Amino acid sequence: MPLTRQEVRVVALAKLRLAPGQIFWDLGTGTGAVAVEAARLLRPEGKVYAVERDLKRVAVARANASRWELGNLAILEGEAPEVLLSLPSPHRVFVGGSGGKLGPILKVVGERLLPGGRVAITGVTLDTLWEAYRWADTSGWEAELLGMTLVRGEKVGSRCLLKGGNPIFLVVAEKPGEGR
Amino acid sequence: MPLTRQEVRVVALAKLRLAPGQIFWDLGTGTGAVAVEAARLLRPEGKVYAVERDLKRVAVARANASRWELGNLAILEGEAPEVLLSLPSPHRVFVGGSGGKLGPILKVVGERLLPGGRVAITGVTLDTLWEAYRWADTSGWEAELLGMTLVRGEKVGSRCLLKGGNPIFLVVAEKPGEGR
Amino acid sequence: MPLTRQEVRVVALAKLRLAPGQIFWDLGTGTGAVAVEAARLLRPEGKVYAVERDLKRVAVARANASRWELGNLAILEGEAPEVLLSLPSPHRVFVGGSGGKLGPILKVVGERLLPGGRVAITGVTLDTLWEAYRWADTSGWEAELLGMTLVRGEKVGSRCLLKGGNPIFLVVAEKPGEGR
Amino acid sequence: MPLTRQEVRVVALAKLRLAPGQIFWDLGTGTGAVAVEAARLLRPEGKVYAVERDLKRVAVARANASRWELGNLAILEGEAPEVLLSLPSPHRVFVGGSGGKLGPILKVVGERLLPGGRVAITGVTLDTLWEAYRWADTSGWEAELLGMTLVRGEKVGSRCLLKGGNPIFLVVAEKPGEGR
Repeated sequence: MPLTRQEVRVVALAKLRLAPGQIFWDLGTGTGAVAVEAARLLRPEGKVYAVERDLKRVAVARANASRWELGNLAILEGEAPEVLLSLPSPHRVFVGGSGGKLGPILKVVGERLLPGGRVAITGVTLDTLWEAYRWADTSGWEAELLGMTLVRGEKVGSRCLLKGGNPIFLVVAEKPGEGR
Repeated sequence: MPLTRQEVRVVALAKLRLAPGQIFWDLGTGTGAVAVEAARLLRPEGKVYAVERDLKRVAVARANASRWELGNLAILEGEAPEVLLSLPSPHRVFVGGSGGKLGPILKVVGERLLPGGRVAITGVTLDTLWEAYRWADTSGWEAELLGMTLVRGEKVGSRCLLKGGNPIFLVVAEKPGEGR
Repeated sequence: MPLTRQEVRVVALAKLRLAPGQIFWDLGTGTGAVAVEAARLLRPEGKVYAVERDLKRVAVARANASRWELGNLAILEGEAPEVLLSLPSPHRVFVGGSGGKLGPILKVVGERLLPGGRVAITGVTLDTLWEAYRWADTSGWEAELLGMTLVRGEKVGSRCLLKGGNPIFLVVAEKPGEGR
Repeated sequence: MPLTRQEVRVVALAKLRLAPGQIFWDLGTGTGAVAVEAARLLRPEGKVYAVERDLKRVAVARANASRWELGNLAILEGEAPEVLLSLPSPHRVFVGGSGGKLGPILKVVGERLLPGGRVAITGVTLDTLWEAYRWADTSGWEAELLGMTLVRGEKVGSRCLLKGGNPIFLVVAEKPGEGR
């Protein structure tokens, strides 16, 4: 199962405003769902670099990606922020997981993101939400904080139980400057 | 564990506006949490009749109630609406569970509730919510529909995960007429 | 402002699973946001028919659509379900508004939707939610009920107020049969 | 209108577990709703000290309180934490508003709260939520974080619109030690 649910993925990608030819970093790609979707939206010229430190997840992400024959998606085993040094600077960044290193990762993203570039950070803990919000707020970038709580109907006998889930937060920020 | 969570119980009881000397029906009392709380608020003259069809739950509710030495609480094994025939007419009714018989139960509650009396119905399925809302709406009583979604912080390592739960709905209605 | 917010639009479109060449009905198109997005995703062969009974909204939707030079989008002034008679049968239907005629609209959608086709209905009232859910449930189609509650951060002085909004519900259903 | 809604007040008071004879501080009492309710629950021996820095609100709170003839409620014009120096140490504290001084207030509460005492802090901004959570977490007290999102049905024509509101957060913490 993808770490980031479909509803959150599509909202995050919509807020990132993908456009042809962009460089996209997907940090903590998990099963690769965001990376695959971004690669499909950005092909043929745009390029997606998906980073994951967990070997098993890298294998799952590569298996998922192989079904789509995406020549513009590279799934890299490695840990952010170190692995980012070797990647071209991005127009768009999605942070789906940060392995306890959100601070150092956002520092690098702040430096490497191209002018006019956008970053979306997901959080399910109060700590991540606060850290992402504070980073966006103090960096003076235009930022948006969004929380999503989803309820799903589940048939129990003849009745429709309303099942809730954990709220998920998104912090989306745009780096000042001309760009796309 | 009580079927109705603490937060929902206290909100429901606040909206029922208990006052000394009232007769209170607690239908589908489960572990007896609402009944015990109501009996404490209504003692010494007010009286609580708690109904439960599940034998094991009746035992649990009686064990819970015994800790409080409440002389004004009767926990009855039986099924609503049939068992209601033998009870004195209520000023207040809480419907925490209806065993698939919400329609017949609300019919009896509509007839037996004293003028100015109030009823609160909890629901976790869309079906119960709709049935309770429709009943209150078509009966022409003043009614309120409230949904509550709770999020709880849960420590996971050093972080605070925000855990969601199922939404719970309350329909509260007041029968027209002078009364309390 | 669009009647259906961006977050709900992208989730609904994702669940509708658009594919090249499809016929798409957007009923109660409002300012045309869903229709424009669908037309962009379906061009060049796919075709979007957007229906709106309010003349002013039709004008707004046409103005919005004109910016995109979409040859595959027709915005029709008229009322569902009557206006649907003249349209080709759809692979996908989005019901963003129904003007109090959800029952008759869903009857026509049930008949006209192609095998394997999908419909998404949005609702902000309990009545619409119930009617859409019941229709999907009794028609025996595979269906999904989703509620979304969004929270937005709003800067008030130096603080970030968490602003809630009305919950929005989606009922998505797939007609049995082979198709796309 | 009370600053803290009924549903939040009753949940906060339930979590504070009031008992006869306690000293209760209500900081940022606003219109006095929490203070009045606490004074009713704690009378006759328990005592409530309600603090408010806004003169108009003090007048409103006093007018509201006068209807209840509560001999155990003092509404004090003044600003926390300074005004707290003159008050007896509390068993229970409710922080409904902090006028930007939550840090200093919690420092005093941490020192003055009696062993086994409980404090509940409400927050509607991410900043207050984080500050209250961090304070409780680092002080090593047993703490609970609760968020409540309420939905209310509102009749619009013959339909029931589901209206959302801002989420409200509660941080409740208990000071270690024997006490009540």
